[in-house]
Formats: sequence, structure tokens, C-alpha cells
Amino acid sequence: MKIDATRLNARLDLLGQVGAVEGQGRTRLALTEEDRLGRKLVSMWMRETGAEVVIDSIGNIHCVLRGQSDDAPIMTGSHIDTVRRAGALDGCYGVVAGIEVIAAIVKARLKPRKTLVVTAFTNEEGVRYTPDLLGSRVMTKEMSLSDALHVVSTDGKRFGEELDRIGYAGEASPWEFLPSAFVELHIEQGPVLDAKGLAIGVVEGVQGYSWWHVAVEGRANHAGTTPMALRLDAGTAAMELIRDITKRSADSLTPAVATIGTFALEPNSINVVPGKASFTIDMRDPYIQTLARAEADLRDAVAALRDEGFKVTLNCTSRNDPVPFSSSLCERIENNAQARSLSSMRIVSGASHDAQMMARVCPTAMIFVPSREGVSHNPREFSTPAQLATGADVLLDTLWQLVEA
Amino acid sequence: MKIDATRLNARLDLLGQVGAVEGQGRTRLALTEEDRLGRKLVSMWMRETGAEVVIDSIGNIHCVLRGQSDDAPIMTGSHIDTVRRAGALDGCYGVVAGIEVIAAIVKARLKPRKTLVVTAFTNEEGVRYTPDLLGSRVMTKEMSLSDALHVVSTDGKRFGEELDRIGYAGEASPWEFLPSAFVELHIEQGPVLDAKGLAIGVVEGVQGYSWWHVAVEGRANHAGTTPMALRLDAGTAAMELIRDITKRSADSLTPAVATIGTFALEPNSINVVPGKASFTIDMRDPYIQTLARAEADLRDAVAALRDEGFKVTLNCTSRNDPVPFSSSLCERIENNAQARSLSSMRIVSGASHDAQMMARVCPTAMIFVPSREGVSHNPREFSTPAQLATGADVLLDTLWQLVEA
Repeated sequence: MKIDATRLNARLDLLGQVGAVEGQGRTRLALTEEDRLGRKLVSMWMRETGAEVVIDSIGNIHCVLRGQSDDAPIMTGSHIDTVRRAGALDGCYGVVAGIEVIAAIVKARLKPRKTLVVTAFTNEEGVRYTPDLLGSRVMTKEMSLSDALHVVSTDGKRFGEELDRIGYAGEASPWEFLPSAFVELHIEQGPVLDAKGLAIGVVEGVQGYSWWHVAVEGRANHAGTTPMALRLDAGTAAMELIRDITKRSADSLTPAVATIGTFALEPNSINVVPGKASFTIDMRDPYIQTLARAEADLRDAVAALRDEGFKVTLNCTSRNDPVPFSSSLCERIENNAQARSLSSMRIVSGASHDAQMMARVCPTAMIFVPSREGVSHNPREFSTPAQLATGADVLLDTLWQLVEA
Repeated sequence: MKIDATRLNARLDLLGQVGAVEGQGRTRLALTEEDRLGRKLVSMWMRETGAEVVIDSIGNIHCVLRGQSDDAPIMTGSHIDTVRRAGALDGCYGVVAGIEVIAAIVKARLKPRKTLVVTAFTNEEGVRYTPDLLGSRVMTKEMSLSDALHVVSTDGKRFGEELDRIGYAGEASPWEFLPSAFVELHIEQGPVLDAKGLAIGVVEGVQGYSWWHVAVEGRANHAGTTPMALRLDAGTAAMELIRDITKRSADSLTPAVATIGTFALEPNSINVVPGKASFTIDMRDPYIQTLARAEADLRDAVAALRDEGFKVTLNCTSRNDPVPFSSSLCERIENNAQARSLSSMRIVSGASHDAQMMARVCPTAMIFVPSREGVSHNPREFSTPAQLATGADVLLDTLWQLVEA
């Protein structure tokens, strides 16, 4: 069996035109008019395969190819909502490729042993509704259906009402298709596969992350009259701490990362020694022990600054433990890549995905294909049609093995 | 001879009430109604000494105690305009103490050999009119009178018209009292004398300064998916350069300082590796060679960043060479402090003063008294009445020697 690569890429182009603005990519926030149009298109393609289309009460759209047994289904899927000014591939690729997998099986006149489901999850990005991963969060009971339906959007609209308005408040239970395995196909959204020239990333898990807000208070002084030795410069003290934190990640043996994305000084005047520095730290690590160690080191660095006379406030603003995926599923994907003579490597996802929710209820893994220069959440997001087709073929092989197992 | 310490301090309090707002210090910007009231008060005190009061065409107010000879006069002075929410001492101290020097000489029924002039210079602070040091700048022909009169304020008013409006466009030439020596008495505005517990700072010169705007461009990337080794993080790169620059100053054998007062990241988002960092550098050094060396080192550090793949723009936004004062005047002040059993040290001014303009036309020096915790340009600016009286006594001794020499 083989994926229809031409149709896969043509459909990604077409879906990418829903919500598109010239030069600004596309914006298809969850439960907006653009999302409704995207859902209509995807549902139509699902129906064209001959499989059943089921909408559940959190708005997840399921394309269900019934199997011969009553065993729990095998599931793949991703999302079609986007961030603002997005690329055409993030999420959409996994959904459209999943539909092609079913189309390929149907075309081959095969009927799988287990039921195969392709799901387009609601509100993965979390731009308009917080939290993100809402469809998979409800499916895995990380959040109650009722709580989810009451979430209010950034523009003041209740989730349940908006879902109803766009016509995607389905009657099926969100738990009807709880799978025995889940595999998500996605673009990497990072530069590793592209930089190494590899075809397939076998995703072992999702990095844990730990977000911090740090404020360092020293003493504002005249920049001309205050000798260096008499300063309590909040800016350079903060930068020294940042240096320790980022150097620690750069030297780490794990693929740990640490990012200082925001930084501000007060009074922020050219000739005043900064009295206050505020910044954020985004730390990620695939291993829970090393993430916890990085957090402990941050606390130690803060204590050292306090000993030097600075007042430091440290707040954890968001945190998620790392999510390990199924090693047997990873091995299977690796073998399938090898069987098609494709180069591959084990990789850890730095971004969030519905798969990390699904990993709470069943063996889960992901397949990555390269992103050019690692650019994502950006109109310049790009993978070649051949790379996309290759990933879809590996998904097909993997899902077929799972439904037949 | 001795200064009337009680009156000196009472007058500083009184002048400090002009333009005062409860809890916010005083604001007496150049050529405003508050400045007019301050000038009236100071002119009145000048006249009370029995000396002549002369206003020149840039608005400088001169209190002139005629000498017996036709030799060029000896001059002291400072300014009475303030920054916003200022303390009561910056500038005012030098003017009011100068008046007390003349009052002490007159009270002692002495007539000096040379003419002694106490000058209140116009627009020293440069808050409402740029450039600063305008009165002394015109007196030393660093700026033409005509150019100065055409300068437009931040609120759109021409200097000449405002000077006329407040009644201080005098008829005297700004060059009528060009002195053969100039000594300015001032609070330190820095923490050195206070920290060392010394009475008198013998000011050897004014630091040169060099102001820079630096922009570092790297590559914005996803904070989760981009491994440390594949980043071109403009933020941490900028911080590394800043570390080199500030460490260089801290380790310097000269009283060099370097301050990063402003810093901004783009896009300034917690989960995006910064694509751009912009910041300012304020470098000061009392020696022209070491200042030039610091500037060369900055250029080298920028070149190194460029070699790493960053795009760096570097602009010098303002620059002044260091101004050395007269070593013989410094020795004289030092001896006078010693003669009164006062502790003293040589010091370099980190702030700008009219004295640095006067140094272009005659031997010049300054006398500093301690500022509590170095706080200035702030309502909390404070020196004890005894410290202020002590400084004025040293000024008296020094000026008397100079007019008699």
C-alpha cells in the first residue's frame, strides 16, 4: 500500500487557503468561521473515503473505519486549528495524512481487524481558548466535558455556545473511540532533522517544561558618579544568573534547553544603573530528574544573588512533567522507516501535541518529518511534498500493523 | 574669615521651596515661572551683599565684587535650574555658598585685589533646553549666543523669547567677566565621599563619556524545539558582550564605569528565542587614552559577535572627551582642606558641570562635599548643614587666595 502523495499535498494546500491572508499565512483560530470552513472541508474528505464521520460533544471529528473485531480502536490524528499567521502544515498534516491512510486501505479493498480512527481534535493550539489540547484533554479526562464547555474565549465567547454556533457540537461521547494505541504524524517544528538531513524523527516523548518569572531588585544609581564597586546593579546581576542557567543547558548531556525570551530593566534609562530587572525563563528537558535538577539549580542561583544583597522574587508560572512515549511503538516506527530505507533518529518533541494527552491513556508515539530551518508558527513553515508523503507512508505502515495485530 | 553657616543653610532651604511640591521635591526647569522666582530670590541675596548684580544676554546672573586691580576676575558659580523632582542642593549650593563668600569678605571689610564674581549660569541641567550647560557654553564660546537664543524648548518655546518673558535677558556681554580662574563648589552626587567618611573631594576633572546604542540580530526560534547548539540567540549574545564590557570596567585601574541602562528583546515572548536585542552602553573614564581603549574594545567585541553570525549595528549617540582640571588649583584646594584639618581625597566627577566648560578658557577646579548614599536628582538628595558649611569655608579660603594672588 502507498499514500496518494499528490492528493495529500494538494489537500494540504487547499486547507491552507482557508483563513489565508496574502503574505500573512492563515489564521484559523478554534471555533471561528475559518475553523468551521476548515472542518467542513476535512469532514467532506473523511466522508469521501467511504468511512463513517462522527462528531463528539467536544467537537472532535472522527473518521471511523470499522474493523472486524470489537477490540478497542487504533487512533491517529492531530488538529486543524492554527495560531495567528500560521503555516499550512502544523496539525493539518497529521489529519490529512490520516485520511489518506484510510483512503489507501479502502482503495486496497482491505478491511482491518481493529477499527481505525482518524481524529481532528478541537482547539489544540489554545490561542482563543485556554487551556490548549482541549479536545484530547477531555477525551483523556484530564478536564471534564462540562468545564471545557464553559471555558470563555479571549473575545468573551463561551466554548459550548461557539461550538454549537459553528455546527460542531456533536452527539457522540468524547470517550466512544478510546484507543488501545495512538500515533500522531507531525512536522518537527524544530531544525534537527533538517540540519542532519534525516527523513524520519521517531518521537520518544515530549519535553517537560518549567516556566519562571524572575524579578531582581538592586539599587538604582547615577551611571556617572557611582563607582563599579559600590553598585548593586540589578541588570548585570540578572544577566549573570541567566548566563549560568543557559550555559548549564548548553553543556547538558540531555537535549535540555533554556530560553530567556523576555527581559526588562527599570527605570530603563541610559544613564541610570538599573534598580530592577524582570525576565522569564523557559526550561525544557525530556527527563523528569534532570528537569528537577535544573529547577533546583535555579533556586540555588537565586539564593546566591540574595546573599549578594539583591531582593529576588521567583515564581513558577507554568509547569508540565516530561511525557515519555511507548518504546515498543517507537521501535515499530523505527523498523518501518528502515524497511522503506529511510534514515531516522530518535527525537524528543519540544512543542506540545495532542499525543501527550493520549499517552496518559494508551501506548503512544509520534512520527516527525523535517521542517525547513525549523521554522513553524510562521507563514514560512515548509516541508517538501516528498518529505510529507514519506512520513505518511510510515504512518500507513505503522497503523496497518497495529490494526492487524 | 568664616562663612555664615546658619544663613547658608536657611537660604538653601528657602530656595528649595521655590517650585516645591509636597513629597515630590522641587521642579525648577530653566526659564519657567519657577526659575524666575528662584532668580529673583538669588538676585536679592546677591544685592544684599552690597556687590553689583549684572545680568548678561544669555541670562547668567553675576554678583560682582569689584577688585582694586584691572586683572581678569576670579569666578565661582553654579546654577539654580533643576531637573524634575530634584533635591535642594544640586547647583544651588554652589551659587548660595558663593554669595556667602562675598558676604564674608564684605563683612570683614576687605577689598580684594582682583574682582570676584559669583555666577548663576542659565540652563545647566538641559531638561527643558538642549544642550545642557548653555550659560557656560555661550560664555566659553562653545556655542554662539545667537544659536543659543534660537534653541527651542521641549514645550516649543524659543530660548530668547522665554528669557525675555521672565525678565532675564540682560544687556551685559556674556564675555564681560571672563575669569583667570574658576572654582565650582558642588555636592558629589555620588557615594564615594560618604562611603569613605571624608569631608572634601578635590575634583581633578570630569569623566569623559561615550554613549552607544547597540542592536544585535540573530534568529528567532521556537524555545522548545530548537536545540541550544542550533540557536543564534540575540539575547544571550548581547548579554555576553555586556558581561565583557562591564567586567572590563570593574577590573580597570582607573575609575572607569560602564552602565547598561536600557535593554529590550524582540519579539519579547516567553517561548521564543530572541531574534533581536537592543541596548545602550554608557561608558565613562577620566582619561582620554583609557576611554578610547574601552571604545576600541567595544568595537572588537562587536566584530567577534559578527564573526559568530550575528548582525550588529553600533552607533555612538553622544560623546565627550574627559576634561582635566588644573593640578595647581587642586593642590591649593587640598592644602586649604588640610589647613582646616579636613579629610580629603582626589576625585573625578561623573556628572557634568559648568566647570567643564570653564576649563576650556581658564584654570579650573571643583570642590565636592559628601552626598548621603550618593543620591542626587532625587528629593532624597542630602548633605548635612555642617558638611555644606565646611565646603563653603574651603571655597572661601581658596577664592580669597586667588583674588589676592
